[in-house]
Amino acid sequence: MDRLKLFGDSRSGNCYKVALLLKLTKTPFAWVETDIMQGATRNEYFLALNPNGKVPLLLWPDGRRLAESNAMLLHLSRDTPYFPRDHWQQALVWQWLFFEQYSHEPYIAVMRFIVAIAKREAEEAGRLVALRQKAHQALAVMEGVLKNSPFFAGDYFTVADIALYAYTHVAAEGGIDLLGYPAVLSWIERVAVQPGHLTMAEACC
Amino acid sequence: MDRLKLFGDSRSGNCYKVALLLKLTKTPFAWVETDIMQGATRNEYFLALNPNGKVPLLLWPDGRRLAESNAMLLHLSRDTPYFPRDHWQQALVWQWLFFEQYSHEPYIAVMRFIVAIAKREAEEAGRLVALRQKAHQALAVMEGVLKNSPFFAGDYFTVADIALYAYTHVAAEGGIDLLGYPAVLSWIERVAVQPGHLTMAEACC
Repeated sequence: MDRLKLFGDSRSGNCYKVALLLKLTKTPFAWVETDIMQGATRNEYFLALNPNGKVPLLLWPDGRRLAESNAMLLHLSRDTPYFPRDHWQQALVWQWLFFEQYSHEPYIAVMRFIVAIAKREAEEAGRLVALRQKAHQALAVMEGVLKNSPFFAGDYFTVADIALYAYTHVAAEGGIDLLGYPAVLSWIERVAVQPGHLTMAEACC
Repeated sequence: MDRLKLFGDSRSGNCYKVALLLKLTKTPFAWVETDIMQGATRNEYFLALNPNGKVPLLLWPDGRRLAESNAMLLHLSRDTPYFPRDHWQQALVWQWLFFEQYSHEPYIAVMRFIVAIAKREAEEAGRLVALRQKAHQALAVMEGVLKNSPFFAGDYFTVADIALYAYTHVAAEGGIDLLGYPAVLSWIERVAVQPGHLTMAEACC
């Protein structure tokens, strides 16, 4: 029988978020490797699925399609332990998901993309200086929260942690040193020992 | 009695979103004008409220604080007609809220900020060229949806429309011509005639 398909690039943290949650919730799916660097998100076939030309993309057997990794996290975590029942904690999950996409990913993920995937560190040296300053601002905000709370929405691991973990734990690949953020480092260790945790390579396949 | 406070800059579309929804849902609140250009989001008082240094910010009388405009839209639209009950339509609302913050606001709102608020059009001419290309990409995605649907999550006006309307309807202030997007222009008119609709100046006060 036809299964849910996840179109993703296996080096992408945004795609890892969704693959990890699907595996944590034991939701059957087929991974469709979609190589960003080879233009696989920009051809006619893919643009018909997602006119915004981005992975991840979820495609259900009945033809429904969903873009935006954090929208997928919310949809797939409904009625699971990864989304809180308390209304205020739900609001905090939403807050951190939007923080991740606006104030974190555009700096921390983009630095890793430039350095480790596109391998354009020398050509983009000036841009990296500006990105680094914003990346450290995001990390300082995270450090402030994690000094007082084990996870982003309180005492339990939620999709807010999955979203922020995806690119934070590989920030070093973009040249970002996390040594100044001990609470972030402890949180990374806490996330990595959650029951059923998988690495990017283990989840994205 | 102490009321909910909304810290906002009255020229900001992100702040307008939240003020509009609060007024549509008849939620009492006090608007606290917070002038970005005068550094009011960067002083010690404000950074203690929101370490990420951004408006809008919601502050409840019991001390709870919520950042991120689209997280506020989700929290405040709970059990109102502005958030759908159908699970798939909810997923679409989430998708468009993340699209807005990642693929729309950083281009369309930032162009308006540079041109109309910071008044740095000449100094930032090169950057505006790059932003314009991405702004039009976002508008083309919106046009594709609105050709086939009156609103972003289907037949009804939701917080996804509030979020995308906030900066789209003032895109011209950033030098973006919407004439090539007839379905977007019709949708702007449809949003503006929703019962209880208020302009930015009417809502942000």
